[in-house]
Amino acid sequence: MPTYTAPVRDTQFILNDVLDIGRYSNLPGFANATPDLVDAILEEAGRFAAEVLQPLNRVGDEVGCKRNDDGSVVTPPGFKEAYDQFVEAGWPTLTGPEEYGGQGLPQVVGTAVTEYILSANHSFEMYQGLTSGAIASLLVKGSDELKQKFVPTMITGKWTGTMNLTEPHCGTDLGLLKTKAEENPDGSYSITGTKIFISSGEHDLAENIIHLVLAKRAGAPDNVKGISLFVVPKFLVNDDGSLGERNKLSCGALEKKMGIHGNATCVMNYDGAKGWLVGEPEKGLAAMFIMMNAARLGVGLQGLAQGEVSYQNAAAYARERRQSRALKQSDREEGAKADPIIVHPDVRRMLMEAKAWNEAGRALVLWGALQVDLMRRSQDEAERQQADDLLGLITPVIKGYLTDKGLQAAVYGQQVLGGHGYIREWGMEQFVRDARICQIYEGTNGIQAMDLVGRKLPKDNGRAVRAFFELVGRDIAEAKQGGDPSGVAAALEPALQDLQAATMWLAQNGMADPNNAGAGAYAYMDLMGLVSLGWMWVKLAAASKRALDAGESDKLFHEAKLVTAEFYAKRELPMSGALRKKIEAGAETLMKIPAEVF
Amino acid sequence: MPTYTAPVRDTQFILNDVLDIGRYSNLPGFANATPDLVDAILEEAGRFAAEVLQPLNRVGDEVGCKRNDDGSVVTPPGFKEAYDQFVEAGWPTLTGPEEYGGQGLPQVVGTAVTEYILSANHSFEMYQGLTSGAIASLLVKGSDELKQKFVPTMITGKWTGTMNLTEPHCGTDLGLLKTKAEENPDGSYSITGTKIFISSGEHDLAENIIHLVLAKRAGAPDNVKGISLFVVPKFLVNDDGSLGERNKLSCGALEKKMGIHGNATCVMNYDGAKGWLVGEPEKGLAAMFIMMNAARLGVGLQGLAQGEVSYQNAAAYARERRQSRALKQSDREEGAKADPIIVHPDVRRMLMEAKAWNEAGRALVLWGALQVDLMRRSQDEAERQQADDLLGLITPVIKGYLTDKGLQAAVYGQQVLGGHGYIREWGMEQFVRDARICQIYEGTNGIQAMDLVGRKLPKDNGRAVRAFFELVGRDIAEAKQGGDPSGVAAALEPALQDLQAATMWLAQNGMADPNNAGAGAYAYMDLMGLVSLGWMWVKLAAASKRALDAGESDKLFHEAKLVTAEFYAKRELPMSGALRKKIEAGAETLMKIPAEVF
Repeated sequence: MPTYTAPVRDTQFILNDVLDIGRYSNLPGFANATPDLVDAILEEAGRFAAEVLQPLNRVGDEVGCKRNDDGSVVTPPGFKEAYDQFVEAGWPTLTGPEEYGGQGLPQVVGTAVTEYILSANHSFEMYQGLTSGAIASLLVKGSDELKQKFVPTMITGKWTGTMNLTEPHCGTDLGLLKTKAEENPDGSYSITGTKIFISSGEHDLAENIIHLVLAKRAGAPDNVKGISLFVVPKFLVNDDGSLGERNKLSCGALEKKMGIHGNATCVMNYDGAKGWLVGEPEKGLAAMFIMMNAARLGVGLQGLAQGEVSYQNAAAYARERRQSRALKQSDREEGAKADPIIVHPDVRRMLMEAKAWNEAGRALVLWGALQVDLMRRSQDEAERQQADDLLGLITPVIKGYLTDKGLQAAVYGQQVLGGHGYIREWGMEQFVRDARICQIYEGTNGIQAMDLVGRKLPKDNGRAVRAFFELVGRDIAEAKQGGDPSGVAAALEPALQDLQAATMWLAQNGMADPNNAGAGAYAYMDLMGLVSLGWMWVKLAAASKRALDAGESDKLFHEAKLVTAEFYAKRELPMSGALRKKIEAGAETLMKIPAEVF
Repeated sequence: MPTYTAPVRDTQFILNDVLDIGRYSNLPGFANATPDLVDAILEEAGRFAAEVLQPLNRVGDEVGCKRNDDGSVVTPPGFKEAYDQFVEAGWPTLTGPEEYGGQGLPQVVGTAVTEYILSANHSFEMYQGLTSGAIASLLVKGSDELKQKFVPTMITGKWTGTMNLTEPHCGTDLGLLKTKAEENPDGSYSITGTKIFISSGEHDLAENIIHLVLAKRAGAPDNVKGISLFVVPKFLVNDDGSLGERNKLSCGALEKKMGIHGNATCVMNYDGAKGWLVGEPEKGLAAMFIMMNAARLGVGLQGLAQGEVSYQNAAAYARERRQSRALKQSDREEGAKADPIIVHPDVRRMLMEAKAWNEAGRALVLWGALQVDLMRRSQDEAERQQADDLLGLITPVIKGYLTDKGLQAAVYGQQVLGGHGYIREWGMEQFVRDARICQIYEGTNGIQAMDLVGRKLPKDNGRAVRAFFELVGRDIAEAKQGGDPSGVAAALEPALQDLQAATMWLAQNGMADPNNAGAGAYAYMDLMGLVSLGWMWVKLAAASKRALDAGESDKLFHEAKLVTAEFYAKRELPMSGALRKKIEAGAETLMKIPAEVF
C-alpha cells in the first residue's frame, strides 16, 4: 500500500526563501499569513491528507461510486466521514473572501494545501475543488442576490459546485451546445438539456450541489456568442437560506472511467430545471472562463500532485528493494548479495527526473498562485496588470506541461517497481490512471497549447510574453553575477533564446498560415514549460545557495537542490533546440496527407 | 467499440518492396513463401484477427480470468472457442520446423501475422505467444527425448508453454532465486518453490501446459552461475504421448493488474513437481536467454501492435468527429458548423507521430525477424554471423524503444478522443493499460538499455554496432545519390553521427566509471531507436520512390510514405543532439544525492 508524506519543508522553502511571501504583507490577507500560521496550516493539512485522505485513495479506486435507481449517488466508503471532518476543520474556507465567511488567506497558501490533498486523494479533492471555480464565477459575475444566496454556504464546503459545459456532441467546441434556457415570468429560467462528464455532479457528501450550467436562451445566436451561464441548484434555496424543493435535474448515469473512480462523473439531465442567469445574457463564455482558468491551474496542480506521490513511493521502494550489485565496486554494500536499487543509475535517472519536475513544478504553481493574489489584491495597478498578464500566459503551460510531466513521473514511479508496479495492490498503477485525466479535462493539453499560441502570445501585442522574457532574463543575469553555482542559469540562457526565436517565428509564420501556429503550438508549450521549470531551478538554486552561504543547518536539503538544478541544466534544458526545430518545421508535412489515407 | 483492420497492404509493401524477401528464396522455407501464399496468409490472418479475436478484446478486459478454488483458471467468455479455431486453422504451426510438424515458413511471415493477432487481442495472443520461446529453448538445448516428447504438440498449439523466472524477491536479479531442484533416482528432478507473474501459467485453453522453470540444483552456487532450466509439464506425458498423472504444481492465485486482464498472470506453486533438465546443469541462464530473446522481440511487436490499433481508432474518430472550424478558411467545409477534427494541426501531430512510429516500427520488427531467419537458415556463415550480431544489438532497441513509442501512440490515440478516450466503453483506455505492461515485462526497458550498452555494444569489440553503422551509412549514401526525395537521408546523417559520437563517448567513459554507462544507457537506447526508425524511413521512402517512378497505381499510399518520411526528418530526427548531450552529461548529477534525501 502506498504512503504519502506532505512535502512541507519544500513548500516552506518555496514560500519563504524563493517567493518570499513575507514581502507582500501590505496586501490584504497576507498580513494574517504569518510564517507561524502558515507553518501550522501546512503541517496540519499534511497530517490530514496523510492520515485521513490517503488511506481512502485505494478504496475509492476499488469500490468507486454507485448510482441508485432513484439517481442518487453513493460515494466510496469513508468519503462522507472524511468530508465531514474536512468541512468541520474549515479547510474549504481557507482562501474564501472574509465578507462571505472565508478566512481570506492568500491563494498561494491555499494552493500549497490543495497539493497535499490532491496527492493523498485526487478523487476526493474534486468534490470540493470545483467549488472554488464556481465561487469565483459567482463572485465576479453574479448579482448580489445570487452571491448572498449561494456563496457563503459554498465557501464552508457544505454545498459544493460543479461546471456543466460538455454535451455528447460537443466538448471543445461549445458553440455547438444544445441545452436550452427559457425565461420564466419571474426572471428565472427553465433549463433543459443533457450534460456529460460532470465531475461531482451528484453525490452524498454535501447538502446541496450548485451547478453552473452553460445553455442558450431562446433566440440567441446558435454559436459561442449565444451562450449564457446559469446557476442551477440541486435543491432550490429559500430566502432564509434553508433548502426548498428539489430542482428538476438528476444524474442519469455514472461514467465508467480509466481512473478517478472515487469521483462521480455524471451524465446530468436537466428537465426544465430552475436556474438564474449569472452575469449578462449571451456573455456566458467570459463567465465560464473565470471558472475554467481557476480549474486549469487546479488541474496543473493535480498533475504535479500525482507525480509527487508516485515519486515518493518509488523512492521508498528503491531504497528498500535489493536487486543486483552496484555497477561500481565502491558502491557495493559489503557482504550483501544485492544492493538497494537506488544505487543503479537508471533507477536514479527516473527518480531525478521526477524530482526535478516536481520541485520546480511546485515552485511554478505557487508562483502562479501568487500572481492570482497580486492580480486580485495588489494596490498597484501596474502590478495587478502584470500579474494578470503573466497568469494568463502561464495558465496553459501549468495545465499542459505539468500534467504531461505528472503522467510521466507517475509512469516512472510505476516503472521503478518493475512488475509490482503493474499489480493493483501496490497502488502505483492507480497514480498513472488517475494522472491521465489531467491531460484531458478542462481543455485537452492540445487546446492549452492553442490557447497559449493563438490567444495568449498575440494578446496586447505580446505584452505578457515580453514581461515573461524580461523576468527570466533578469534572473539569469542575477544568477550569473552570483557565480551560477549549479550552472543552470548558463544552461537556461540558450533555451530562453530558443524560446524567443520560436516566438518570433510563430509571430511571423503563424500570421501567413495559421496552420503553422497550430502545428508548432504543442512544441511551443513544451518549450515554454521547459524554460519555466528551468527558470524555477534558477530561483531554487539561488535560494539554496543563499541558505548555504548563510550557514543554514539544513545542508543536505540545499545541496540536493543545487545538484538537481545542475541535473536539470545538463539533462533537460538541452532539449530546447530540438523543440525549436519542431516548431520551425511548420505545418506542411502535418497537413499534406489526405484525411482518408490516415 | 473499437475496430481493427490488419494493415495488410503495409506489411506486403515492407516484405516485398523494402525487405525484398523474394531474394532469399534459396533459404529453407522461403521458397515456399511465394508472394501468393504470403498474401493469402496475411489476408486470412487479418480476417481472423479482426473478426474473431478483436471482438473478444473488451470482454477479456471487463470479465478477465477467474481462478476456481481447486486452482483451475477460467479464461474470459469466448476465448476457448476462439483458441480452438486458432489451433484448428493451424496458426500456431506457421513457423515451426517441418520435422516437428510445423509449416517451416519464415519468421518474418510469422511475425507479420503475430502483429495482427496482438493488435486484435494482446491477452489472447499471450497464451500461445510464449510457447514459441519455450519451443525455441527446447529445440536448441533440449535432449532428443524431450524434443520428441513436447515440441510436436506444442507446435500445434494444443499444449502451450510458459517461462517461470520471477520470484517474489527477485525479478531482474535471477541470481537470488530460491526455487530448488532435487535429483530423483530416475534422472528427473523434483522442483519446489514459488514463481510469480507467470503469464498463461494456468488456463482452460490447452490440454497441457509445459512450464520452463529456472531453479537451483542442490549444491549449485547460490548465484546466477547456479541456475538450471527445467521443463515441468502440468500433466506428465506418457511414452505414447498421452497425458499421464497431474504434476505437483498449481496456480496459487491470479494477480489483479492494470491491464491485460484477459491473460491469466499466475502465482505458481511447485511442490516437488517432476521436471527434466533442459541443456546442461548450471547453464540455465543461457537456455533461458533463448526464450527471453524471442520473447523480447515479441514484446516489441506488442508495443507496435497496441500503437497501431489505437492509431487506427483515433484516425477513424478524427475523420468523423466534428468540433470547431479549421484554422484556415480554405480548409473549412462549406455550410458545416464544425469541421472533422482531422483538419486541426494538433490532432494531426498526434496521428502523424503515431503513424511515423508504427510504420517504421513495423519495418524494423520485420527486419529483425528477417535476421532471425538469416541467422537460422542462411547457408553462408558470414551472413549468419552478421544476422546474429545485428539481432543481438537490435533486440533491446526493438523491445525498449518500440514499447515506449507504443505507449505514447496509445496515449495519443486516447487523447484524440478527448474525454471519450477516458471512458471505458470507447476502448481506447484499454490500449493504454495493455500497452503499459510491454515496458515492464521480459526485462524492464531500463534493463534493455543496460543490455544494449553494457553487453551488446562492447561484445566482440563492437563488431555488431560497427556493422549497424555501416548498413545505415550505406543506405544514407544510396538515398542521397537517388536524390533523397523526402530529405530523410540528409536528416539521418547528423543523427547517425550523434549516435556514433555517443558510442565513442560511452566506450571511453563507461570504462573509466561504469556509472557513466548506466547513466547514459536509456538515452543511448532512445538515440539508437530514433536512428533505427530513421533508417527504416530511408528504406521506406526509397521503396516508395521506386514504386512511384515505376508508375505504380497505388499513388496515394506511396506519396503518404514520402510525406511521413519527411515529417520524421523534420520533427523527430532533430532530437538526436539533445539525446547525445544527455549521454555525455555522465553520471555525476545522477549519483550525487544521498539515498536518504530522495
